[in-house]
Amino acid sequence: LRLVAAVSILALAASAQAQPAAKKPAPTKPLADILAASPKSAWRALDQANLVYLDLPKGRVIIELAPAFAPNHVANVKLLAKAGFYDKGGIIRAQDNFVVQWGIPDGQPDPPLGGAKEKLAPEFTRASQGLAFTALPDRDSYAAQTGFVGGFPAARDPKTGRAWLTHCYGTVAVARSAEPNSGNGGSLYAVIGPARHLDRNLSVVGRVVQGMALLSTTSRGEGAMGFYAKPADATPIKVRIGSDVPAADQVGLEALRTDSPTFATVAEARRNRRDDFYRTPQGGVDVCNVPLPVRPKS
Amino acid sequence: LRLVAAVSILALAASAQAQPAAKKPAPTKPLADILAASPKSAWRALDQANLVYLDLPKGRVIIELAPAFAPNHVANVKLLAKAGFYDKGGIIRAQDNFVVQWGIPDGQPDPPLGGAKEKLAPEFTRASQGLAFTALPDRDSYAAQTGFVGGFPAARDPKTGRAWLTHCYGTVAVARSAEPNSGNGGSLYAVIGPARHLDRNLSVVGRVVQGMALLSTTSRGEGAMGFYAKPADATPIKVRIGSDVPAADQVGLEALRTDSPTFATVAEARRNRRDDFYRTPQGGVDVCNVPLPVRPKS
Repeated sequence: LRLVAAVSILALAASAQAQPAAKKPAPTKPLADILAASPKSAWRALDQANLVYLDLPKGRVIIELAPAFAPNHVANVKLLAKAGFYDKGGIIRAQDNFVVQWGIPDGQPDPPLGGAKEKLAPEFTRASQGLAFTALPDRDSYAAQTGFVGGFPAARDPKTGRAWLTHCYGTVAVARSAEPNSGNGGSLYAVIGPARHLDRNLSVVGRVVQGMALLSTTSRGEGAMGFYAKPADATPIKVRIGSDVPAADQVGLEALRTDSPTFATVAEARRNRRDDFYRTPQGGVDVCNVPLPVRPKS
Repeated sequence: LRLVAAVSILALAASAQAQPAAKKPAPTKPLADILAASPKSAWRALDQANLVYLDLPKGRVIIELAPAFAPNHVANVKLLAKAGFYDKGGIIRAQDNFVVQWGIPDGQPDPPLGGAKEKLAPEFTRASQGLAFTALPDRDSYAAQTGFVGGFPAARDPKTGRAWLTHCYGTVAVARSAEPNSGNGGSLYAVIGPARHLDRNLSVVGRVVQGMALLSTTSRGEGAMGFYAKPADATPIKVRIGSDVPAADQVGLEALRTDSPTFATVAEARRNRRDDFYRTPQGGVDVCNVPLPVRPKS
């Protein structure tokens, strides 16, 4: 299965390059054109029960949860959101080139957990078996193989039989202290810089699918590790699960299926972009540099 | 030479791991501790004649230029700065997860060039020969080999004999239109997201060494490609070369030499971080994820 997936991307790449009459390969189509030509079957509607609405004073951030990778942490996040736990906290940290984090400021007592577990065993990796993994054919600095699972950037190691979600721009994971089981989802972070060195050391629960710029432009904290020196500097937040939001206020979104031929074309366009502007194709791509298109539900 | 450089990092890694008595490898030291223990010889003072001071309403950004890679574009940037060219423009573009760009807004006539060339041949790559290249031993998704040259993240291809600076967070390069020779340095961009697909397609002139957060938190543009829809939204800028700034206002900086043993330790600490928090070392690192420390000159 893994080879088939890898080959499917390569095969598309090869067919895109083998234009019969032209000596030069055909120019790469812009992303918007590739998406405009995509069939409806290439898209999947996001399930409101799996979306976190993170409302900031300046706008709305939406996160898709990944229960296939961190079922217990995702369950906790849902319970905490339903209990209004996060609304007692805020954005407490913004470290340039690394992460933006939200939760309860240090020194403030934890609000009631609403049935969520206080501690959870780590969900840093999971068994690779049973996952439909669309592999990239390219070398990676951190993992034996990278690719995509159900819309999320991922990696796996055939030697250990484990798979995990990678820390890419927009990845959301569970903050913790030194003990591996010290995170319960009450404090979460979104990646805003290179952070693959966190892979397999933290529990990834999802990724931002809308409003990422609201997090990435957050004023950086001036305390150690980008924490705000004064808890009062925390940006207020309101966190709900999509299915708990009144229907009129829900945001319908659909994401490009990462196992679709259209996505293979998107990935290949980034691996080997050739057009009037890009004269030298790269011959490869980092798993964190493949676009993961999301659009309003049609 | 290239092998020696690569081996020097690996050798350090091996010696750090080969603690005689302990069964577990010694914990990785925090970056601050590694730097605190560094000898003075591990640092180089930045040359004011090679620094660009980019002053924004909220503070100062400082860029170190890389004349070894783009001598003609660097010379142009200096002439344009001295002529006050950039001060007639501003920050005209901020595209989330990609780049922040400054220059003259579209539709506004170019100010006088102060002797700078109107067009320049591309400086996308240069001969690898003659460069002291400190290689990383890790796989890379884009290049045959990555590493560092004189403080800058870089890559090279033994097959073509070419080397280039990589598009990492903070890399500054020359914006252009489709024609490869259409950039003259009058419009520059700083990378704020994954952008390695630009490598070898644009002329890199340097990297931000101070104040990067001032650029990365810039409000994103709402026009196509993150350009501001109204030119009036451009953030005003004042651009000078360090050596033209009155001495009392100059910022003395020193950067960790990327060919120093201390830097090899810094890189290894990111490649295989082992401490109370990081239980699973990565076994590799992306060239864009190795810290490049800069501090006030001692």
